Amino acid sequence: MAKINPHFSRLHSPYIFPVIEEKLALLTSQVPPFSIINLGIGDIALPLAPAVVKAICGATEEMGVKETQKGYGPSEGYLFLREGVAKSCYGDLGISPEEIFISDGANSDTSNLQELFAQDSVIAIPDPTYPVYKATNIMAGRADTITLLPCTIENGFLPQPPSTRVDLVYICSPSNPTGVALNRDAWTRWITYARENEALIVHDHAYSAFIRSPDVPRSVYEIPGANEVVIECCSFSKTAGFTGLRCAWAVVPRALPHNLHALWKKRTTTKSNGVAYPIQRGALAALTAEGKQETQEQVDIYMKQAELLSSGLKKLGFSCFGGTDAPYIWWKTPHGMSSWQFFDTLLEKCHLVAIPGLGFGPSGEGYIRLSTFTTSEIAQEALARIRKL
Amino acid sequence: MAKINPHFSRLHSPYIFPVIEEKLALLTSQVPPFSIINLGIGDIALPLAPAVVKAICGATEEMGVKETQKGYGPSEGYLFLREGVAKSCYGDLGISPEEIFISDGANSDTSNLQELFAQDSVIAIPDPTYPVYKATNIMAGRADTITLLPCTIENGFLPQPPSTRVDLVYICSPSNPTGVALNRDAWTRWITYARENEALIVHDHAYSAFIRSPDVPRSVYEIPGANEVVIECCSFSKTAGFTGLRCAWAVVPRALPHNLHALWKKRTTTKSNGVAYPIQRGALAALTAEGKQETQEQVDIYMKQAELLSSGLKKLGFSCFGGTDAPYIWWKTPHGMSSWQFFDTLLEKCHLVAIPGLGFGPSGEGYIRLSTFTTSEIAQEALARIRKL
Repeated sequence: MAKINPHFSRLHSPYIFPVIEEKLALLTSQVPPFSIINLGIGDIALPLAPAVVKAICGATEEMGVKETQKGYGPSEGYLFLREGVAKSCYGDLGISPEEIFISDGANSDTSNLQELFAQDSVIAIPDPTYPVYKATNIMAGRADTITLLPCTIENGFLPQPPSTRVDLVYICSPSNPTGVALNRDAWTRWITYARENEALIVHDHAYSAFIRSPDVPRSVYEIPGANEVVIECCSFSKTAGFTGLRCAWAVVPRALPHNLHALWKKRTTTKSNGVAYPIQRGALAALTAEGKQETQEQVDIYMKQAELLSSGLKKLGFSCFGGTDAPYIWWKTPHGMSSWQFFDTLLEKCHLVAIPGLGFGPSGEGYIRLSTFTTSEIAQEALARIRKL
Repeated sequence: MAKINPHFSRLHSPYIFPVIEEKLALLTSQVPPFSIINLGIGDIALPLAPAVVKAICGATEEMGVKETQKGYGPSEGYLFLREGVAKSCYGDLGISPEEIFISDGANSDTSNLQELFAQDSVIAIPDPTYPVYKATNIMAGRADTITLLPCTIENGFLPQPPSTRVDLVYICSPSNPTGVALNRDAWTRWITYARENEALIVHDHAYSAFIRSPDVPRSVYEIPGANEVVIECCSFSKTAGFTGLRCAWAVVPRALPHNLHALWKKRTTTKSNGVAYPIQRGALAALTAEGKQETQEQVDIYMKQAELLSSGLKKLGFSCFGGTDAPYIWWKTPHGMSSWQFFDTLLEKCHLVAIPGLGFGPSGEGYIRLSTFTTSEIAQEALARIRKL
């Protein structure tokens, strides 16, 4: 009898989104779909920027002509995009194009990077956080060596270095789901911890474009020594509206110990044939002056909704956090309701979809995540409905 | 100290393509690049079909309009493509759209499917074969439980069911690199073996479009009982010139044991956010009557070169195999030369790039792989140069 990976059975809780989808499907069968406001999944609400559309179509047409057709690209990504990212996103921080690996998503990268580490590695994961870090480590056989870092109102929802040593730490800053971000001081404490404990940090930086606070670094590599302990995963998904196009990158510095750079290159060139050429051309277009202006306008629109929703909820007497450096609001449930209870209330009474905080970890209980990837009209309509609660 | 996955160090041999790239780079620095004929890596030589270009551009423009913009798609692929594949490629074989998982490559799928199995699973891998099956199992800690299935001139280069039981078998048919394919009888023996031994088969079917022999099944699911023991991985790469676009699918039937279908769904929805919407639209276009005609013309061109090269080599007194159901010729090296020696001879004397058989496994020694993904002019020029050897 073929032997199945026994670790999959340790994935106890159902992944949260399918449950929400089910509840949403039930509501959709009862009310007109357009009456439902979805501030659940953090997905874009605005169309692709014109510069990106133009670049993808141009590159596709190139592939349709004999003289300029393209076959396999480099597994690590085309040099034009790696150079574009290095220049545009890291400037003088000392990150070379060869340290940048293009991929089909920060989801993939944060899922796959754990493969570089031994099975008995001790893993620290913020609680609450994006569920994929935990799930992928459980699948890899680390259910018993995961330690959670509670992010609560007492510590400003920021993961704190643990008192014991761990091998690998996941940090998502600006944070999904809490919407708060580590500032330079907080990052410096983490870098110091990692260096002193010879730990590695995987930094999920998918929300980099939303940072507004001056003391929050735009890249972790602004912090001295970070290139010796941090792998930074970034994405075009939220920055440039690429959720439906799949393009991201991981910075795996050469200065990391254990030759991790070479290991990741080996893993990448073995298991992947890279990202579609037209998509990489589209990503490069998002980094041009024209593309940046167009995508920045969209980021500004999403952050305007964050302000609108955050101030609106506070005026209504609710307690909420985040929304300053990320398109998420971390909303304390009223009257001690559980996060699923409040989810159900919002769904039933307001036809409003949010994400129960519990879905992001036990410390998410008592909170709900509101995505601000929406338009002004929808954000205002959401507030109007919440007012009537 | 963070602990590194110790299994990466078991990857002894350098992955073959980087070594060839180096030798090629050296030659390129000495002679004009256009004088080099590359029949090495199995990559397309013809432009993307017009129907595919049109569909990708149309879908991208859709994403650029507010009313039709698209965010995250389903991790398993859009239903339109899963339905298209089910209908177009499996007809009445009883494969449902839900059993088809869209991915970014058969390389990814054949790399990742091993995650569903226990670390101490016994793995059977043809020798020679596509090196990724072995490499990814070594990375996952199975270096000591891999058994090779020699494919030699005595068995027609076809992997034979072993005398002992194994948990998981990889079969690539039509075969990369030997260019031969399992016929119905050979497949029936494998299905019987798998059922009797409760083994599972991962079938890499990337070269399905090139099958010409009437007794070679177009899908393994033509063989009764195959849906209880085989996962079939197919690709648009070679079939429709998608190597630079990245789109493929795996059929993971519900009838497989251990709920493998549900496990793969869990793995897919956790670790991936699917394939770009425009690329999936392009893939669907390749399945339309127009797209099929355009891509079939290209497949026919590649197979014409297979005939031309195969008959040409035989006329020159060489011994070669394959080239009837796959765009690869498995060429016996002359005068007992080693595969790397013959590689060097072809490179130096003919400026012709091929792949040394040894790169595909120890039984590949004494052979060289010639890709026939090329045009008639180039195939003829290659023969003219070989004639002068």
